[in-house]
Amino acid sequence: MTVSCMSHLECSKCGKTYDPDQVNQLCACGAPLLVKYDTKRLAAVKKDILFNRPPSLWRYKEFLPVKKDESIVTLGEGMTPIIPLEKIGARLGMRNLYMKDEGIIPTGTFKCRGAAVGVSRAKELGIKTLVMPTAGNAGAAWAMYSARAGMKAYIVMPEDAPPITRNECAVSGAALYFVRGIISDATKIVVRAVEKYGWFDASTLKEPYRIEGKKTMALEIAEQFNWEVPDVIIYPTGGGVGIIGIYKCLCELQEIGWIERKMPRLVSVQAAGCAPIIKAWEEGKSESERWKNPVTVALGLKIPKPLGDFLILDAIYKTNGCAVAIEDEEILGAQANLAAEEGVFACPEGASTLAAAVRLFKQGWIQADEKVVLLNTGTGLKYPETVKVEAPSLDPNEDLPV
Amino acid sequence: MTVSCMSHLECSKCGKTYDPDQVNQLCACGAPLLVKYDTKRLAAVKKDILFNRPPSLWRYKEFLPVKKDESIVTLGEGMTPIIPLEKIGARLGMRNLYMKDEGIIPTGTFKCRGAAVGVSRAKELGIKTLVMPTAGNAGAAWAMYSARAGMKAYIVMPEDAPPITRNECAVSGAALYFVRGIISDATKIVVRAVEKYGWFDASTLKEPYRIEGKKTMALEIAEQFNWEVPDVIIYPTGGGVGIIGIYKCLCELQEIGWIERKMPRLVSVQAAGCAPIIKAWEEGKSESERWKNPVTVALGLKIPKPLGDFLILDAIYKTNGCAVAIEDEEILGAQANLAAEEGVFACPEGASTLAAAVRLFKQGWIQADEKVVLLNTGTGLKYPETVKVEAPSLDPNEDLPV
Repeated sequence: MTVSCMSHLECSKCGKTYDPDQVNQLCACGAPLLVKYDTKRLAAVKKDILFNRPPSLWRYKEFLPVKKDESIVTLGEGMTPIIPLEKIGARLGMRNLYMKDEGIIPTGTFKCRGAAVGVSRAKELGIKTLVMPTAGNAGAAWAMYSARAGMKAYIVMPEDAPPITRNECAVSGAALYFVRGIISDATKIVVRAVEKYGWFDASTLKEPYRIEGKKTMALEIAEQFNWEVPDVIIYPTGGGVGIIGIYKCLCELQEIGWIERKMPRLVSVQAAGCAPIIKAWEEGKSESERWKNPVTVALGLKIPKPLGDFLILDAIYKTNGCAVAIEDEEILGAQANLAAEEGVFACPEGASTLAAAVRLFKQGWIQADEKVVLLNTGTGLKYPETVKVEAPSLDPNEDLPV
Repeated sequence: MTVSCMSHLECSKCGKTYDPDQVNQLCACGAPLLVKYDTKRLAAVKKDILFNRPPSLWRYKEFLPVKKDESIVTLGEGMTPIIPLEKIGARLGMRNLYMKDEGIIPTGTFKCRGAAVGVSRAKELGIKTLVMPTAGNAGAAWAMYSARAGMKAYIVMPEDAPPITRNECAVSGAALYFVRGIISDATKIVVRAVEKYGWFDASTLKEPYRIEGKKTMALEIAEQFNWEVPDVIIYPTGGGVGIIGIYKCLCELQEIGWIERKMPRLVSVQAAGCAPIIKAWEEGKSESERWKNPVTVALGLKIPKPLGDFLILDAIYKTNGCAVAIEDEEILGAQANLAAEEGVFACPEGASTLAAAVRLFKQGWIQADEKVVLLNTGTGLKYPETVKVEAPSLDPNEDLPV
């Protein structure tokens, strides 16, 4: 018996089960597969054994699908800090405002969690070559972890993906390709490559393990708040694996009694220029429609129709959450406020969560005393073009003005 | 009695003592002041109390100069991962090669440790405005932590400083100035501003607390290796506060008996285009000469004469260490190897340590079984210009080639 308590894979739509020791992609019905665990075994795990392990996401290995320690491909990812936003909170009147800062992690974004667990499990299953479309950051993370695992990675990204993510792919030795188009055009190229060459498809939700990496954000939030989960978690939603993973994990933790039955309300934030989930939620639908002409500075949110839209919407509905669209101007304003007031240089996607919190608080949807966690999904270092620098140049003999 | 075991400040050259509750800069004799601790109180600290605290550098607060918890200005910095470099190690024949990855930290470089402790202590002492020259990354870190502390920061950097560090300063709301020249020209401007306006001078080693933040790297290395320190620690040396802090801390840990008397050999790495410490060490001198026309891609190493040169050289001599100069081409080669073989995107300064390890191992200075720790001082994300991207662009209907 391995440490992992994984039992089987199960289709998120039709419920069909699959053997996790085989290479699996989507269910025959076309929907994503989810990892299921033996909850009796999970419930028997001793918390203090976990908490004496090093502060990476691998401390939760019972809750993860990787069976053998030697399969683990790690760069020390996880246990990102929870940062109190006291100054912004005081200005707004919110008394318990926090940010979980996923910028403080290898490759600088939360994508590394999915890559760490996804690549580890791919290695365990004997995969040699993977291929994926990406808005930029996921490709960079999978390229780096694939390099560490000795796996070949083909990465296809739109020409307008964040420039630094190109550098990461290039320096890792991945096979990098640009597409003249958006991410759905990159997907078309990947789908054909998978058919033609038989490579492993590491696209969002087309393999079952990335979500397991992302879900560790919920385990960490629960542990960091001493197993009293926050009232609200606000999440920027592109492909939505983060919010799906968080919800999945909170359900697992409830089932084994590690957290109480009260669920945090999950809020999905998207950019006003690409808001398929917000539109579907406002219309009370269970799936989204493809967004036409997506435009936003928050490039990670430029996903016109997430494959897991029905799972995202389900998480929002089941937790009495909501969905909020934010204009680019507000996103950049929130980014500036986070840096100037709290010293956090967030990516635009992450900054959008502050703008959403402000709006929901003003609307009375969030109360002054509620514990609210913003998820900053990555570091602003990867988006230098979102900041304007205007500074004078001096000669060595010139003085600073007051 | 506060948790901090700080007792007083002491000049690193003449031994004169100073009251830590006053604002102090350099000693009257012109040398840096060091923080001294009550080692009896430190020796009485229970290790397990520290290790049950959250994984940030503040878990070591007895070893730090900040007296009140409410003075602490933190973004969750510290406990960066130690990453085994097994593939590179196997290729070279080094059986215990590790990297401590200081890229996984707020602001993306080890400078944040100095800023966290330095700004916290400045806040505790009532400082409202600080000013500093910077090669880029220190300024970015101090700008962010000053913003969080509500302090005004004036930052002066060379026009060729890493572009992303400009963005960090700008978005934090710091007063940013460029100088047409190198860091010593920025220093001239800062010296005059301190005289003229009475601002606090946060320059390297001109205040006593930055070094205390940096020294936590040694505490973490000791803890992460279960209090058996490595045989060799290789450090890229610009201003040298890191290596000075590590040496200071190892001495403190020896004095209280937390580590054995065997000291790691400390290696200072500089770029061949700016190697004042290497030259001084090769000539057996105790101070360096100003390097003329410094040139290197590793911008953090472009310090023509570190103020703490005598402390850096002392650390090397006392630990039977050595000093190594690396050409830019080798630095960039090491950066590419770290990414392609190990999945770590290191900054050029950090990558230089791998090139140094390779050379010292080939020379027989490092043995195959010795435990060697490379200090990667920052993330490569902040230096995208060091990586060349050559990738084809495809139309959506084009296929990936094998």
